[in-house]
Amino acid sequence: MFYVIGLGLGDAKDITARGLEIVKNAQRVYLEAYTSILTVGKEALEQFYGRNLIIADRELVEQGADEILEDADAIDVAFLVVGDPFGATTHTDLLLRAKEKGITCKVVHNASIMNAIGCCGLQLYNYGETVSIPYWTDTWQPDSFYDKIASNRRRGLHTLCLLDIKVKEPTLESLCKKKKEYLPPRFMSVSEAAEQLLKIIEKKGVADSEELAYGVDTLCIGVARVGSDTQQIKACTLEEMKNTDLGPPLHSLVIAGHLHPLEMEYLVQFAKSKDRLQQIA
Amino acid sequence: MFYVIGLGLGDAKDITARGLEIVKNAQRVYLEAYTSILTVGKEALEQFYGRNLIIADRELVEQGADEILEDADAIDVAFLVVGDPFGATTHTDLLLRAKEKGITCKVVHNASIMNAIGCCGLQLYNYGETVSIPYWTDTWQPDSFYDKIASNRRRGLHTLCLLDIKVKEPTLESLCKKKKEYLPPRFMSVSEAAEQLLKIIEKKGVADSEELAYGVDTLCIGVARVGSDTQQIKACTLEEMKNTDLGPPLHSLVIAGHLHPLEMEYLVQFAKSKDRLQQIA
Repeated sequence: MFYVIGLGLGDAKDITARGLEIVKNAQRVYLEAYTSILTVGKEALEQFYGRNLIIADRELVEQGADEILEDADAIDVAFLVVGDPFGATTHTDLLLRAKEKGITCKVVHNASIMNAIGCCGLQLYNYGETVSIPYWTDTWQPDSFYDKIASNRRRGLHTLCLLDIKVKEPTLESLCKKKKEYLPPRFMSVSEAAEQLLKIIEKKGVADSEELAYGVDTLCIGVARVGSDTQQIKACTLEEMKNTDLGPPLHSLVIAGHLHPLEMEYLVQFAKSKDRLQQIA
Repeated sequence: MFYVIGLGLGDAKDITARGLEIVKNAQRVYLEAYTSILTVGKEALEQFYGRNLIIADRELVEQGADEILEDADAIDVAFLVVGDPFGATTHTDLLLRAKEKGITCKVVHNASIMNAIGCCGLQLYNYGETVSIPYWTDTWQPDSFYDKIASNRRRGLHTLCLLDIKVKEPTLESLCKKKKEYLPPRFMSVSEAAEQLLKIIEKKGVADSEELAYGVDTLCIGVARVGSDTQQIKACTLEEMKNTDLGPPLHSLVIAGHLHPLEMEYLVQFAKSKDRLQQIA
């Protein structure tokens, strides 16, 4: 049997009782370690689970599916992913490969940022399409997510922005070499995301500011380490978010749409004051 | 401390290790029992947790917040909800009441249908706004969700439809009486949902069929008991869904938007055949 098990968002104790039981009994257990991270590392998980984990980095997952799935028709293999198993297309692909090989698969769901973002008090059914904000380079500055935010905002909907993660990215220089060298891991902060979002509207110009999807004064909510003991949430303007430090990763950003009274009431605890929040909203 | 703990979607073992630890040690533990249900009842949970649970029905949650929160500044009180704690506005409201009373609150996240719907293979970031489909009566037949589905479909996005649940609804006759009588619980099936959706387009007429949000041949995906061992998923036309029985609750329905190749590839396993799926899509 091939199990894909969601670990949730915080630390080792966020695995479900069902997931833990499988992890304890499986012959091999992989930990996927490049699409997301917990607030604790491999060692803390191994200690809590009472067993060794095999790190599955991008190369192994994308090119070594056969290795991961080896003998899974006869023995139990578990593949652990941060959040929920269906959060990344990579895991869907791995399940497909397993099914092709005639291996029975089971999925153990858990919280992901797609539902845990409810913690900021904006109701999940008031969100539109989720967007991803990638790190820009000097020569590659995509902004296709801008139109999606605009479309959500026009209909009064909130937008969850997933922020880029770069783990085990080979350096440009080593791409053609046999032995790859890797860049240090990077996790986009709410501050970096706000800066990129503001650069986009600068480029679009002030002439049609009424037409912009959002402005410097648009209410946004930054969240960090959701579900952990050090979780942080801040509600302020996009301009203020640019100068906000919510600490270590992972961060996500919400661009607010129309606020309902209960949402406003809940959000106050994360703003400077009720007056300030009402002023922004 | 006041804990709100998500139970996930399947059965007793879907609670997280963190959640289970809190449940075992709390002085009082409530089980919210009217916005959603697991595939098992109170007794199975009590057996797995090794302790008694207090059922929190609609009356207690909406009118008895003081009772639930009593002494939670000095002792540990846990409030268990199916799915994730932020799935229903009721729970957000309870957290607000606790904060007003100066009670420290902690939330333990878990899977909810909002992210576990990924199990059908349609990617979560390709969904637009989520809608709720209520049971119609002879005199009350709201269809405001139609425009939301239309808006999602225009942009190629999928729509998750949450289906109505009626638990402990007082009978009309007993509404003014001291001792209320209750209707038997009802959980909308994918078949009932498809029937209502088809009635809406019938009413809108065939004259502007090009303009309709969806048609009898639109691809939809019905899911039942997500996350449990008896989970069922079926991909077919809306007309076929009307005649589909996915068994006991809970059910949810997805109206597909534009399908990406990987989504199509994953969805095949839930359709009659690859050819049939391609024909519908």
